[in-house]
Amino acid sequence: MAAKPIIKVVAICGSLRKASTNHGLLRSAIELSESIEGMSIEHVDISPLPMLNTDLEVDGKYPPVVEDFRRKILESDCFLFASPEYNYSITGNFDLPPNVWANKPAAIVSAGGGFGGGRSQYHLRQIGVFLDLHFINKPEFVVNAFQPPPKFNNDGDLIDPATKVRLKDVLLSLKAFALRLQQGN
Amino acid sequence: MAAKPIIKVVAICGSLRKASTNHGLLRSAIELSESIEGMSIEHVDISPLPMLNTDLEVDGKYPPVVEDFRRKILESDCFLFASPEYNYSITGNFDLPPNVWANKPAAIVSAGGGFGGGRSQYHLRQIGVFLDLHFINKPEFVVNAFQPPPKFNNDGDLIDPATKVRLKDVLLSLKAFALRLQQGN
Amino acid sequence: MAAKPIIKVVAICGSLRKASTNHGLLRSAIELSESIEGMSIEHVDISPLPMLNTDLEVDGKYPPVVEDFRRKILESDCFLFASPEYNYSITGNFDLPPNVWANKPAAIVSAGGGFGGGRSQYHLRQIGVFLDLHFINKPEFVVNAFQPPPKFNNDGDLIDPATKVRLKDVLLSLKAFALRLQQGN
Amino acid sequence: MAAKPIIKVVAICGSLRKASTNHGLLRSAIELSESIEGMSIEHVDISPLPMLNTDLEVDGKYPPVVEDFRRKILESDCFLFASPEYNYSITGNFDLPPNVWANKPAAIVSAGGGFGGGRSQYHLRQIGVFLDLHFINKPEFVVNAFQPPPKFNNDGDLIDPATKVRLKDVLLSLKAFALRLQQGN
Repeated sequence: MAAKPIIKVVAICGSLRKASTNHGLLRSAIELSESIEGMSIEHVDISPLPMLNTDLEVDGKYPPVVEDFRRKILESDCFLFASPEYNYSITGNFDLPPNVWANKPAAIVSAGGGFGGGRSQYHLRQIGVFLDLHFINKPEFVVNAFQPPPKFNNDGDLIDPATKVRLKDVLLSLKAFALRLQQGN
Repeated sequence: MAAKPIIKVVAICGSLRKASTNHGLLRSAIELSESIEGMSIEHVDISPLPMLNTDLEVDGKYPPVVEDFRRKILESDCFLFASPEYNYSITGNFDLPPNVWANKPAAIVSAGGGFGGGRSQYHLRQIGVFLDLHFINKPEFVVNAFQPPPKFNNDGDLIDPATKVRLKDVLLSLKAFALRLQQGN
Repeated sequence: MAAKPIIKVVAICGSLRKASTNHGLLRSAIELSESIEGMSIEHVDISPLPMLNTDLEVDGKYPPVVEDFRRKILESDCFLFASPEYNYSITGNFDLPPNVWANKPAAIVSAGGGFGGGRSQYHLRQIGVFLDLHFINKPEFVVNAFQPPPKFNNDGDLIDPATKVRLKDVLLSLKAFALRLQQGN
Repeated sequence: MAAKPIIKVVAICGSLRKASTNHGLLRSAIELSESIEGMSIEHVDISPLPMLNTDLEVDGKYPPVVEDFRRKILESDCFLFASPEYNYSITGNFDLPPNVWANKPAAIVSAGGGFGGGRSQYHLRQIGVFLDLHFINKPEFVVNAFQPPPKFNNDGDLIDPATKVRLKDVLLSLKAFALRLQQGN
């Protein structure tokens, strides 16, 4: 009779803090898994990883620490994320008290494929609720970087006049909203 | 007659890639702002910043590069974010082709104040659509780390028996879903 | 040899408009499914359904049109949603041009189990981007209606003094933000 | 000396249940506002409103109940939403216990302007966490109904062959995932 397969779980913690309770959840999960037949959990530490970006690729390879991480992901059966919440989202890069962003206006622009970065804007807006940012609503600015006519040159410079007009409208709206909020104080 | 105030904009780009089109948007915005009276834009480079976490604080101070960044934020009037979309969200830390996560099950657990990390879970689930992860839906697991009775000790170890039972249920659900998806292949 | 099972799909369209392109997608899907072995799609019209709420339940039964709908859901194998986007979300109830909400401040309060209605607030905020509402960020107000001490009586009246204080703070913040935006105009 | 303006608040409750605690929040807010100078709150009942859609417009007018509602919105200074959470979002239309959707696969397709309905899909996916639906991740299907070449005729019928191929791929993926989940049971 064939044994049931072992389910190999890679556990990942989004927090870099030593005494993080989210790390504590993973330690507890590993201990608990010892009483679960057919399941093993390995904690894979992400703190040695660089901020990922495709510029890291050289000759079709990422740095060894990245390649090792990716191999472990590939060889696992499933994942357990311990996902600390920072500023109402998943990334800690805005996260230090006291809050230096509060009560100021902001605008978002993005370029990309698909929705031109649109999905990221709504996540950033949710972070803004925590940071107490006042985003302008209009005009929204996304640009699909890959649809003709060309919008950017190979250095990433914006070269499309119509898109520049839209971008300037964002700046004017941001300026007007900043003045309105300041003068209303 | 008093001059209208100058609106000082800090522009921040979420991308670390050199030829990023999102950097291009900021360069273009800075150029365009020269024709807008009463507005100046300064690009603040976030690439020298460490991953932020409160462990960085020593004697009430963060490292100089962080303190400098925070001072610029504080002194500005408003913000312009160029927000690249990575994996349907704002952080690039899962983002390298080819995708090594695809078609695998996953679970999320989180601890924190307020909703116990709940907001981060829905952002992570959206990233999972891009990565092609199959998250279990039930049981959901969040734990408010600050409500009595104590759930964690000072090292972040989970010490609450009832929460451990809930955590084990997550593991069992993940195991069952992993087996179901594998055996259905 | 056993036949592979037929996958029964219930298709649901969120739009009530007759010439909706989302209805068109479902008509096309049904036609296309005729060339897919082992799959049948039935369109279930939701337009006769009342707005659902648990007050509809009488003697353990919902109205026949609701019970019929629920039986079809239960007997199906899976679902195909044609999901029109209204105001950046899934519900059309704010959706009529021209926009009468634009450029006004707003606040959100909610009561419920779990996160006290918190998830709905972030979806409503996204709708606010479309409607051009300026939501206050602070204080946020959610109340878990089921945690002790009792917050509401059986009629749904708020009876908890501490929660009333928090609610009043929302009103004061909304008033202040409304004045600030008006006087800055 | 000019009096400060009165801030007129329209308060709206998303719940139709009589004893809703969210209604209770609005009743309490109205009472509390009596001790706030310069602020008046009017509750505007949305229960008589039909499900809104642009088919309601005849000769440039919506039905009187809708026109009245819109006039009140237009004449107000700001809004207070009591926003009950249904199924992890803002609309109750999936919301009746016991859950008849649980543990089944689903797919989403959408047509629209902009992102082709994409924003609604992520809100629907969050509802799916509550309902315990297993959405396919790939292929995602959005179609911008207004970009050339024409995708739909005036009746909303899908007429673009390339889009039909993409739609069929969704159906095949849904069928395969449904079989996989059933056979893994």
